Amino acid sequence: MKKFKLEEIANFISGEIHFNQNLTINGLNDLKNAQKGHITFIGNSKFKKYWNESKASAAIVNDTIKIEDSDKPIIFVKDADIAMGKLLEIFSPKNVPVFDHEIHPAAVIHPSAILSNNIKIGPFCYVGKDVTIGEGSTLYPNVSVFDNSIIGDNCIFWSGTVIRENSVIGDSCTFHNNVSIGADGFGYRPSPDGKGLVKIHHIGNVVIGNNVEIGANTCVDKATFDSTIIGDGCKIDNLVQIAHNSVMGKYCIMAGNSGLAGSVTLGDGVMIGGSASVKEHTKIGSGASVGAGSGVISDVAEGTTVLGYPASEYREMLKQWVAIKKLTKN
Amino acid sequence: MKKFKLEEIANFISGEIHFNQNLTINGLNDLKNAQKGHITFIGNSKFKKYWNESKASAAIVNDTIKIEDSDKPIIFVKDADIAMGKLLEIFSPKNVPVFDHEIHPAAVIHPSAILSNNIKIGPFCYVGKDVTIGEGSTLYPNVSVFDNSIIGDNCIFWSGTVIRENSVIGDSCTFHNNVSIGADGFGYRPSPDGKGLVKIHHIGNVVIGNNVEIGANTCVDKATFDSTIIGDGCKIDNLVQIAHNSVMGKYCIMAGNSGLAGSVTLGDGVMIGGSASVKEHTKIGSGASVGAGSGVISDVAEGTTVLGYPASEYREMLKQWVAIKKLTKN
Amino acid sequence: MKKFKLEEIANFISGEIHFNQNLTINGLNDLKNAQKGHITFIGNSKFKKYWNESKASAAIVNDTIKIEDSDKPIIFVKDADIAMGKLLEIFSPKNVPVFDHEIHPAAVIHPSAILSNNIKIGPFCYVGKDVTIGEGSTLYPNVSVFDNSIIGDNCIFWSGTVIRENSVIGDSCTFHNNVSIGADGFGYRPSPDGKGLVKIHHIGNVVIGNNVEIGANTCVDKATFDSTIIGDGCKIDNLVQIAHNSVMGKYCIMAGNSGLAGSVTLGDGVMIGGSASVKEHTKIGSGASVGAGSGVISDVAEGTTVLGYPASEYREMLKQWVAIKKLTKN
Repeated sequence: MKKFKLEEIANFISGEIHFNQNLTINGLNDLKNAQKGHITFIGNSKFKKYWNESKASAAIVNDTIKIEDSDKPIIFVKDADIAMGKLLEIFSPKNVPVFDHEIHPAAVIHPSAILSNNIKIGPFCYVGKDVTIGEGSTLYPNVSVFDNSIIGDNCIFWSGTVIRENSVIGDSCTFHNNVSIGADGFGYRPSPDGKGLVKIHHIGNVVIGNNVEIGANTCVDKATFDSTIIGDGCKIDNLVQIAHNSVMGKYCIMAGNSGLAGSVTLGDGVMIGGSASVKEHTKIGSGASVGAGSGVISDVAEGTTVLGYPASEYREMLKQWVAIKKLTKN
Repeated sequence: MKKFKLEEIANFISGEIHFNQNLTINGLNDLKNAQKGHITFIGNSKFKKYWNESKASAAIVNDTIKIEDSDKPIIFVKDADIAMGKLLEIFSPKNVPVFDHEIHPAAVIHPSAILSNNIKIGPFCYVGKDVTIGEGSTLYPNVSVFDNSIIGDNCIFWSGTVIRENSVIGDSCTFHNNVSIGADGFGYRPSPDGKGLVKIHHIGNVVIGNNVEIGANTCVDKATFDSTIIGDGCKIDNLVQIAHNSVMGKYCIMAGNSGLAGSVTLGDGVMIGGSASVKEHTKIGSGASVGAGSGVISDVAEGTTVLGYPASEYREMLKQWVAIKKLTKN
Repeated sequence: MKKFKLEEIANFISGEIHFNQNLTINGLNDLKNAQKGHITFIGNSKFKKYWNESKASAAIVNDTIKIEDSDKPIIFVKDADIAMGKLLEIFSPKNVPVFDHEIHPAAVIHPSAILSNNIKIGPFCYVGKDVTIGEGSTLYPNVSVFDNSIIGDNCIFWSGTVIRENSVIGDSCTFHNNVSIGADGFGYRPSPDGKGLVKIHHIGNVVIGNNVEIGANTCVDKATFDSTIIGDGCKIDNLVQIAHNSVMGKYCIMAGNSGLAGSVTLGDGVMIGGSASVKEHTKIGSGASVGAGSGVISDVAEGTTVLGYPASEYREMLKQWVAIKKLTKN
């Protein structure tokens, strides 16, 4: 772990030291788990009472929280959470996995592929016909990118990720392990002879903006005609399903195990809770939130928070939950 | 994108052109997104009103829908949806990913494996002892097929798919990225000494019929004694869990994030909605449907539609939902 | 399939034969599916009535179940389920997939990695810088293990599994296909400029105990500061999400499609049903159970069973379900 002088840290996060001591900080952690030599953080006054018993040697505290007296140093800042986020960056072990070759000889790359500068491609990667990969992007071992896909600059694709043909991916995207981009959408029609199902061919693709992060084992399917779209800055957790023709605006969040059925539209800044699902052709307006575990079956207006199954406006749903509990009290 | 004369399209889908013009069609899309040069489709009279404002140059319309007058050509057909499905096939860019070798030298294939004619095996594929692969099948890069498995003709396995030992897979199956077939079933018993759990060994396998499509990151586990079975023509979406000993009839559909616990039996033509789950040892009769997000905890009769958690017949469940909403109105 | 004399089987499971015959047993199955030559089992008296019509040639029966008369041999034992589990082990085809090399030449292994004795590493595996792998462990083809990770003895990692940097894994663990260990936790904060989201760097890792089994396509994310921890003997099914900072005690069970949001704490012996989800920062006490499909949003006391969404004590929830059904009967 790296080490920093207390003053270095205070400068780095633009904070003001009270009860100063000459200290070296060698790690950071929350109030409960911090050890001697660590710095911790207090972003909410309700946690103030744990400060004295914490083993941390110093704390970063919101300047709206009053601490009159402390036998350990405190750095007051405007937002302790943001400061902690910054510190995590400088304490982060810079041992991101490396391999000895820029382009590993055990990768198979089609001669027509266009590879920009400063690309790293690990062993057992496959890069297909007419693929383009932008500057500074990294493919860890066992990644497959299929024909005609375009990958932007500074992307990181972890092992097991598969990018199917004709996908378009922006700059600075990170995809974790075993992500699937651009598999066929799930579309069938009853066979005219009444026996079984006929597959709907999908001629569309997936288009992903800049600064998108996609969690492990998450799937984004290609569109029927056009593009399944994920806007700039979206953050998607593990094991999420994004079906064909769905369109997500900017800065949307989808937590683990959640899913969008086909042709769902999300505005900007929409938050979908863990294990929630959204019915096909539903529209969810900008700034709306869907509670964890909810099942959304009708459109959600901008800025609204919905909850439950079937999902309703959250205060209405909380009332329903109270009313159901009362039923058994009679 | 390919191009077709309007007459060529009409002939191909057995339709009749009204308001004919000499047109070349270079794509297809829905009413809202179609552009100049595209053909669109109207399968339901409620969408008729959007026809005039659509940018599409022509439309395919059900012959039961009356359009007396149009300044753009219309092809009337018996079923516009089926016609559109056919067109998607001919417009489909035939650029399915290719690699330069039939059997890539960077694949590892056990000498005892039986490879039929016209097989393609990409780099970094592993084919184990005594595996059989049928005519015309394709393994994209990074697919692993383990010992004694039998793969039928004309199958397509996309990257990251793993077929475990002793699996039997029919003809014309497509498995998308990172599919897992034949991992051990999830079975344990409390240890006789009261400490922990003892694993139940699974000596069965997975048997999959013909024309089965399995979505990305979906899992089908092997059976305890016999076979976990997926019948002909089943269509399974992404991130679906099919546990040990389950048996699915023909033409069943399972949407994304849904799951069957162990020893579930589905008849033919059963539809399981997205994120729905079915309790172990449950039987669901032919033609039954389970609504999205439902939790099924008891048997479902043939042809019945169930909904909710715990799932009930759908009209009963809709009544319950209405009754709960009323509770908060008093 | 292997064959055993009836007496051999009785000796092996410490049972007592009644209605003995000179028989060779060539397989085992449940009452309904067993064939001639098979042995079956009756662990519950309610299944006794199916014994006469079963095609099995012999049965293993709990010695608390009275069967006075039978024209086929019966082996009475203390616990037929445990006996069946033991038999599955000896009948199990010992054809676990093999490859011809100990360390396949088509694996890429960093020279700094420490490989113990009797390790098998399949083709297209990647083993990064300073990785340690314990004695007798097997990596099937297409497994990636990143820098500084420590793998114990006798572990089995199936194809497509990815172990990210700094992970620590105990002895005798089995991870099925396409498992993801140690991807970044899902943490973001609103950007101070009000535009979008800032990633929280995660400097922690994943620590997994001994005898842990993890199902296909399951994900365990690394912690923010410390470790996401899975205790000894935990058994985790397919498509499960275990988010950053969660801590699981010993012998916990999580069924398919279930998930723990961030910083969840489970005691020992906790059971989480299929498709259930647990809210962030929730504590679930030792011996507690969460029913399938439930959504847990508050702490669960030791030994308690909860059910439903939002989850309540199960008897209370069953009452609520009855009360809701009654609403529609008025």
